[in-house]
Amino acid sequence: MSVRAPGTHVTPGIHTDHPTAQKHLTAVAGTPPVKVYALGGLEEIGRNCTVFECGDDIVIVDMGLMFPEEGMPGIDYIIPNIAPLKGKEKNIRGIIVTHGHMDHIGGLPLLIGKLGFPVIFTAPLTAGIIRKRQEEYGNVNQLKIQMVTTNAKIALGKNFTFEPFHVNHNISDAFGAALHTPYGTMIYTGDFKFDFTPVNDEPADLTHIAMFGARGVLCMFSDSTNAESPGHQISESQVGLELERIIANAKGRLIIGTFSSLLTRAQQIITIAEKHGKKVLIEGRSMNANVELAHQLGYMHIKPGPIIDEGAAMRIADDKLIIVCTGAQGEKNAVLMRVANNEHRFLQIKPGDGIVFSSSVIPGNERTVQSLKDTLVRQGAKVYHYQNLDVHAGGHAKQEDLKLMLRLMKPKYFMPIHGNRFLLEAHADLAEVVGVPRPNIFVAENGQVIEFDNEGGRMTKDKVLTDYVMVDGLGVGDVSQVVLRDRVMLAEDGIFVIIATVEKKTGQLVGSPDIISRGFVYMRENKELIERSRARVKKILKDTDSRSPAFDDHLKNKLRNDVGQFLFHETKRRPMVLPVIIEV
Amino acid sequence: MSVRAPGTHVTPGIHTDHPTAQKHLTAVAGTPPVKVYALGGLEEIGRNCTVFECGDDIVIVDMGLMFPEEGMPGIDYIIPNIAPLKGKEKNIRGIIVTHGHMDHIGGLPLLIGKLGFPVIFTAPLTAGIIRKRQEEYGNVNQLKIQMVTTNAKIALGKNFTFEPFHVNHNISDAFGAALHTPYGTMIYTGDFKFDFTPVNDEPADLTHIAMFGARGVLCMFSDSTNAESPGHQISESQVGLELERIIANAKGRLIIGTFSSLLTRAQQIITIAEKHGKKVLIEGRSMNANVELAHQLGYMHIKPGPIIDEGAAMRIADDKLIIVCTGAQGEKNAVLMRVANNEHRFLQIKPGDGIVFSSSVIPGNERTVQSLKDTLVRQGAKVYHYQNLDVHAGGHAKQEDLKLMLRLMKPKYFMPIHGNRFLLEAHADLAEVVGVPRPNIFVAENGQVIEFDNEGGRMTKDKVLTDYVMVDGLGVGDVSQVVLRDRVMLAEDGIFVIIATVEKKTGQLVGSPDIISRGFVYMRENKELIERSRARVKKILKDTDSRSPAFDDHLKNKLRNDVGQFLFHETKRRPMVLPVIIEV
Repeated sequence: MSVRAPGTHVTPGIHTDHPTAQKHLTAVAGTPPVKVYALGGLEEIGRNCTVFECGDDIVIVDMGLMFPEEGMPGIDYIIPNIAPLKGKEKNIRGIIVTHGHMDHIGGLPLLIGKLGFPVIFTAPLTAGIIRKRQEEYGNVNQLKIQMVTTNAKIALGKNFTFEPFHVNHNISDAFGAALHTPYGTMIYTGDFKFDFTPVNDEPADLTHIAMFGARGVLCMFSDSTNAESPGHQISESQVGLELERIIANAKGRLIIGTFSSLLTRAQQIITIAEKHGKKVLIEGRSMNANVELAHQLGYMHIKPGPIIDEGAAMRIADDKLIIVCTGAQGEKNAVLMRVANNEHRFLQIKPGDGIVFSSSVIPGNERTVQSLKDTLVRQGAKVYHYQNLDVHAGGHAKQEDLKLMLRLMKPKYFMPIHGNRFLLEAHADLAEVVGVPRPNIFVAENGQVIEFDNEGGRMTKDKVLTDYVMVDGLGVGDVSQVVLRDRVMLAEDGIFVIIATVEKKTGQLVGSPDIISRGFVYMRENKELIERSRARVKKILKDTDSRSPAFDDHLKNKLRNDVGQFLFHETKRRPMVLPVIIEV
Repeated sequence: MSVRAPGTHVTPGIHTDHPTAQKHLTAVAGTPPVKVYALGGLEEIGRNCTVFECGDDIVIVDMGLMFPEEGMPGIDYIIPNIAPLKGKEKNIRGIIVTHGHMDHIGGLPLLIGKLGFPVIFTAPLTAGIIRKRQEEYGNVNQLKIQMVTTNAKIALGKNFTFEPFHVNHNISDAFGAALHTPYGTMIYTGDFKFDFTPVNDEPADLTHIAMFGARGVLCMFSDSTNAESPGHQISESQVGLELERIIANAKGRLIIGTFSSLLTRAQQIITIAEKHGKKVLIEGRSMNANVELAHQLGYMHIKPGPIIDEGAAMRIADDKLIIVCTGAQGEKNAVLMRVANNEHRFLQIKPGDGIVFSSSVIPGNERTVQSLKDTLVRQGAKVYHYQNLDVHAGGHAKQEDLKLMLRLMKPKYFMPIHGNRFLLEAHADLAEVVGVPRPNIFVAENGQVIEFDNEGGRMTKDKVLTDYVMVDGLGVGDVSQVVLRDRVMLAEDGIFVIIATVEKKTGQLVGSPDIISRGFVYMRENKELIERSRARVKKILKDTDSRSPAFDDHLKNKLRNDVGQFLFHETKRRPMVLPVIIEV
């Protein structure tokens, strides 16, 4: 976190107060244990939401959202399940938000009201992003945000003191959270990396981090995203060198796609562009909004010269123009996708264009990104990406960086978080290698409660509810497993609706049954199959005893099974068969 | 290709006949041009099917299948579109099949009959796999297969002579195809790599390959799968060293997942197991069938000792047992998936098990494989995979290998194939670097026709039809874009069926409209929404003039639009609205 007035220089690592001024909490007799659990977060990338609870004091760290996995068609995103906090809302002393990425702030707008608008403790850029997002949901005036700086020590109830420390990440203003508790200091690293030569940022505060280690850390909760990647994360400055090489040599337009929140990347491009007499067009709503926000808050240093607007961009020579935009993940409506598909208002690809994918590929997006690249090269563009050039530095510590954090913090207990199970285990192995005893390493299930008291720390058998709360359109948590299962089934082989009209008194079929299908076979070319299905329906209706009390259910089951089997036999497909009996 | 009687040793590279005995075809006046086009294959991984046509002679190389892409729910696979061959079936002089992987043979069973069962030219293992697969489809007796050896020169009509040459791949018996034509020699590398220390195979025949180059190659068509990967592909022997280290040190059971066709891997494991006094259980139907086939044909050297059956496997000590199985791609019904999900007949994971993923991850499977690994480590297993150890060697040449092939063949024209557009362009760049002039490099669209005659080679503007022929259950090519679009829509937000019964004469509503939805909202918890929708339906029916001649269509459109908009407004979801009017 580089919290400062724009332009003010902060000497990294000099925090005159922390060696002495730290408030030490101690556990007197009767102090309840500290419980730590995640509302879906410890094991997941996304939905990050970790609860620290001690008696009547609750502190929450982060409140993210997660994008849907396979088998969740139509779901927009998934938010933390706050059920375990029900009835304890008044105990919440604050929500610490470590940085402004969606997987750390995305759950706030839908949940903070339900929690009674507790105070959010965060840094200015993150606060700006949170406010902007809340505007889309209303209630922005009810948000209570308290800015924190790295020399702060903030009492949260009588059992917690919060002390942020600066780390690097691929968004400005990221910090880790130290929580001093009656049993010792807990360290929540947040998403982090060490960058000794960052851009528009200070290096992670190694001195501050070392001081925690010197005074003793009870337990560290640390980012496992890259726990399987050997070596060190590269520095943002190194990306700058590679980008400069590409920008200096570009003979045509350069279109650089990245994350809209990766403002240091945008900053680098602008700085390099200026150096080489080129101009930058920033394209895309979210990218422009973020740049503006960062500029206002002093996180970006933009002179008026190099940035131009659409009109000017269309007039200058191709080899002078750089376009920075979103869409490097193949997001449907982002600029790069629209440009590739010839749907952009004024940009089209032409031979000679260079496209830089200045981002990594988020797991699950591989095919979409590949197909986007194909579309671009097909139109004559040259594509540069992080697999063939250093045009991206990730935001997460790799193995050697994780070891550095462990060596500095020297925690007694260690808990890998933020990564799927496989990565947590890999991170646990690293911790063991650098000396944390295996029994002191907790690889927990989602929702599993970890407890600390005078006896030490342990994983308990308690688990809080972590069922997925899925957001689909305006619905929050209303898409059940039944609905999802139906969607998956409909996607596979479509639906086959049978509508039979029967006479109420006699149960006799009136007219011919209607059959409608979607997503199963092309009806026009399968008239015979439909006719044969209809004949079966008629026969079943004729053969079923309408005097039976459970006539309706019995008939529907029979239709579903018999017609389903017939269709499977004929086509080896299993559409959802939906029988409807209309009584007239 | 190491075509030989089991046990016979072939000195690699010594083919006494090929320097002199080659039949040289020459273009006399009036010889028609050679046309080359792909039935969906040049640009795709999968569906490989390349047609060489000269006058009345047609030679086809490979006939694969491709797995569905995003946006194709329910589709099993996609086969080549043979429409461009319609009416020319009698001209087909043969189908050359370069190796036995699905993306090179998978289209055969459904298509070879339609092409009149032309002769398949291939090597013994590939032939065995083709026959076995055809058995599932019937007509196996109509297959005509001619075995080829690397010193063969086979006249195919008067315009083509086919000469196979041995390459390495991750299945035995892979070859490249040289096609001598009136205008010069065409080289189709097939899927290949160079392995100087292969397992159960001879190294790629560098001498044979060099001889083609020495005599002059008109055009080379080469495998682009790894055109973006720097360096050399590792040798299967190197994988053996790593596997041996893991096997020798295993203190518990080892479960090694790989491709069922990767028999050299199975061979290595068996050899290493024997050396270390361990036993191997081969588990899974396809794996066992392939091992048996390879053993019968002499491609695997298995002594009875190390292989044991299920009963014996359950009795021996854990640290003596290795299980080789399928499922390293997270395939739904494969052994590893069933074991992980506790659905296997007799195998369950227990702490101390080691699991080796001895395969790369096919693009699109990343998430599934990740989640499989999570499930395994959660049960206490230790996972080894190719990203953290050399436990897999890919089957495809990397950049330096591709350059070696180019340097040896020295083709006048070059065409990258087998890879998406992005990889084709990368391969084209490599060819340029090693000296092929840019205008002589053809990066074609799928189906685009390339032509060679006395004037040289060129990409024409002609394109053959390459529409996807999708296979879904028993249906071949019957799933239209309409059906797919419906499936995608159904998956997103489900379906909302409105059934209104009206009196035929008056158009008046009878009773209350029925509403059924699936995959949209959970009906029981959304009774109010359903009631309000029903009220809208009633109002629309009341307001619509039933005397209008297009009453039915008009009413349906109105219901679809109005109810659709209402539901979107209320839920921000767009289910498929399906109005049904029943007249009684």
